[in-house]
Amino acid sequence: MNIQSLIRSTMAVCAGLALVYLPPLAVALVSNEGWIAFGLPFAALALIGLAGLVIGFKSRVPLGPREGVAIVVVTWVVACVSGAFPFLISGVTTSVTDALFESASGFTTTGSTIFADVESLPRSILFWRSLTHWLGGMGILVLAVAILPALGIGGFQLLRAEAPGPDVERLAPRIAHTARAFWGIYAGLTAVEVALLMLGGMDLFDAVNHSFATLATGGFSTRNASIAAYQSPFIEWVVSAFMILSGVNFALYYRALIREFRRIANDTELKTYVGFLVISVTIVTLALIVSRTYADVGESLRYATFQVATLTTSTGFATADYVVWPGIARGVLFLALLIGGCVGSTSGGVKMLHVATLGKIVGRQVLQLAHPRAVVTIKINKTPVNQRTESSIVGFFVLYLFVVALSTLVVASSGTDLETALTATLAVIGNVGPGFGQVGPTLNFAFLPDYVKLTLSAVMLIGRLEIYTVAVLFIPGYLRGW
Amino acid sequence: MNIQSLIRSTMAVCAGLALVYLPPLAVALVSNEGWIAFGLPFAALALIGLAGLVIGFKSRVPLGPREGVAIVVVTWVVACVSGAFPFLISGVTTSVTDALFESASGFTTTGSTIFADVESLPRSILFWRSLTHWLGGMGILVLAVAILPALGIGGFQLLRAEAPGPDVERLAPRIAHTARAFWGIYAGLTAVEVALLMLGGMDLFDAVNHSFATLATGGFSTRNASIAAYQSPFIEWVVSAFMILSGVNFALYYRALIREFRRIANDTELKTYVGFLVISVTIVTLALIVSRTYADVGESLRYATFQVATLTTSTGFATADYVVWPGIARGVLFLALLIGGCVGSTSGGVKMLHVATLGKIVGRQVLQLAHPRAVVTIKINKTPVNQRTESSIVGFFVLYLFVVALSTLVVASSGTDLETALTATLAVIGNVGPGFGQVGPTLNFAFLPDYVKLTLSAVMLIGRLEIYTVAVLFIPGYLRGW
Repeated sequence: MNIQSLIRSTMAVCAGLALVYLPPLAVALVSNEGWIAFGLPFAALALIGLAGLVIGFKSRVPLGPREGVAIVVVTWVVACVSGAFPFLISGVTTSVTDALFESASGFTTTGSTIFADVESLPRSILFWRSLTHWLGGMGILVLAVAILPALGIGGFQLLRAEAPGPDVERLAPRIAHTARAFWGIYAGLTAVEVALLMLGGMDLFDAVNHSFATLATGGFSTRNASIAAYQSPFIEWVVSAFMILSGVNFALYYRALIREFRRIANDTELKTYVGFLVISVTIVTLALIVSRTYADVGESLRYATFQVATLTTSTGFATADYVVWPGIARGVLFLALLIGGCVGSTSGGVKMLHVATLGKIVGRQVLQLAHPRAVVTIKINKTPVNQRTESSIVGFFVLYLFVVALSTLVVASSGTDLETALTATLAVIGNVGPGFGQVGPTLNFAFLPDYVKLTLSAVMLIGRLEIYTVAVLFIPGYLRGW
Repeated sequence: MNIQSLIRSTMAVCAGLALVYLPPLAVALVSNEGWIAFGLPFAALALIGLAGLVIGFKSRVPLGPREGVAIVVVTWVVACVSGAFPFLISGVTTSVTDALFESASGFTTTGSTIFADVESLPRSILFWRSLTHWLGGMGILVLAVAILPALGIGGFQLLRAEAPGPDVERLAPRIAHTARAFWGIYAGLTAVEVALLMLGGMDLFDAVNHSFATLATGGFSTRNASIAAYQSPFIEWVVSAFMILSGVNFALYYRALIREFRRIANDTELKTYVGFLVISVTIVTLALIVSRTYADVGESLRYATFQVATLTTSTGFATADYVVWPGIARGVLFLALLIGGCVGSTSGGVKMLHVATLGKIVGRQVLQLAHPRAVVTIKINKTPVNQRTESSIVGFFVLYLFVVALSTLVVASSGTDLETALTATLAVIGNVGPGFGQVGPTLNFAFLPDYVKLTLSAVMLIGRLEIYTVAVLFIPGYLRGW
């Protein structure tokens, strides 16, 4: 580990982060909310960035995968910690823990909140919350496009063919090209959603905030009742559609742009994702119709689609208190909470690609049991999956469950019921937002003690960085090199 | 699939099962409870058995693994179905579903009950419930020793070195020898527990019943308050100790008898099991002390040990209503409920060996991520695990979670809360007995609708037969041969 290059890179990160505080600063000035909440962090980060500019951001030693991991983790930690300052300086909370939780929840696009009354927050703070989502979503796309495939993490190995090899710096131009394309798609979809939401009657401010939170599959809203506040079926359908679009691997949009339609049609994960959504929406809709929870079939379908989409894509917007829905509907939503969206999207959870691979492993084992001499190959996107990738995905899944178990114990130790402890954990590790029980969609995380909030903040980050990225840091001697 | 040989084998199974009804028939006669409840099923099964004797139990075609699977499943289904008759004939229940549930719960050593007041049941019925446990436990040991290793299922492949190969009939003498040794150990431990329980003040009837339920890690009791009814710390410690002993791979006792102590010391699963128990008991005891749930440290340790042992070994006896214990204690018990005891014991759950292997897979993946060129081998009992065994264990685990997800949905569809639905499922697939929420240790399964009880009965059997055994039956063309 080259400490010097890590420090230089961190300074570069600060310089970049400083710019991020300018838009909310503008909102604060326009809304007469004072410059200090965003001006101060901007100044501090800009100073560090300037110092970096003076001594030079680039070290002469080339960066290896080890430095790559360290820089990724440092970047997210610096973003989350610095992002807590506007909440503290503006005085919307006096708790350092709460400010950290809200910031981490924003940047990791989780969307769990500690604010019971968001409508009383200053406009600049509301905008800041949505912006942390949107930037966090961008950060995830960079991770998915460039860094995780290079590190060979989980299903990202499967994206490797399109992605650069292990020497990050030498392939920088290619990463930069792909990343630009991804961001263009991301920004373009955001703009289309803003326009559609305004067409549905939202004002510009709300439309921008909700579009930021949708594309990032974050879930922070400017309204206490979330999307339900607008009482508009049109808005609900628009948000549902864009949540589902945001849960798709962005590489597929890129492929659509370069007209590789055959590869889209062959995409195993997309098929799994669409299949899961269709089946889940059908079951939930039927459960709502049978239980007469809503007035008619159309309404049942709308609420079912929204809630399935919000939990599968790990967004966390709400239009209904699904905690009081029929048991089977809650069961399906619980599964959605666990599984999550697609690899290479802004969504979280175990992810469809991993679930599909695990399903194929089971199928192979059962077949081999029946026909011991048969050799069954697992294929993803019509390509055989090698042993290393398979083990990597299995390891990811088990590690995921292990972190879930540990975190559930920590949350439960504060005296919550098991449903709350388990779903709060699944909601943060999957970067979803709300869970069930005491952390349901109409409630918030404020009541939890500080040590639980800090644990959950860490779990958000662990989930966002696909666990492995954080796990390697715990290997003795890893950072020092050996 | 040779249908004729399957029918002949089923007749042999019936002949064997007929004998099983003789001891409870004796208890019924001694207690003046009439002969009909056990005499009738005995007569029916004996008749089928006699017919089999006449036409010959053995077919001239040798039995292959395909027939082996079919016979295993048929045996358990016939046992569970015929075992329901005494409940119906004696009139203790009029519901066919409830009778089936109780019988399946007995033979699979689950121990979930539909009776709210077991103390009002006839003595012969109480004895029948315990006996189904004890026989079910024996059946599992045969499966573990002889059949599952031959089929190469999950962690049982790891036992293969000691176990016979695929041609079941040719190796019958060796299976018979090992099985006899296992049963000797099983019966011997039962006898010792009976003596100790009587020393603690239980009468012979209760001591036999509870010893049967302990060794089988079943959990049916003759008292409404389960073990708590005796108000005896001595009895609680004895039962705790024998539950823990029953959760150990019985092959280790066999090894102790033939003085292979080094192999016991190297046993990965035993170390994992003991480690898990020590850590869990410590955490739960501390939680009970801190929360002042019990009067002193000794009492906290006793209750903690009992509840950790009962859930880890999937027995299901109760001395305390752990549903009202502190959150972290419940969390640990929830994990115990999921994980279960050792392969080759009478306990259920995912099993320690599988959990240990999954943990090692994770460790390997993280290490390989840090050092991409390193080749890391997973070892169990100081022996490298081959790829096929590893995949088999992974497949088992994923399949386990898949069945849990499906069953949870079915239970939840009846309107229970998620905690009840999930833990009821884990309690039956792991053959534990009680869960949390509405199926906690002081409650029972009677309130669930029939379709849920039937599903849970099937899940008990699926769990007991290690899932794969049932899963292969669903492969198109498997039974017909191809």
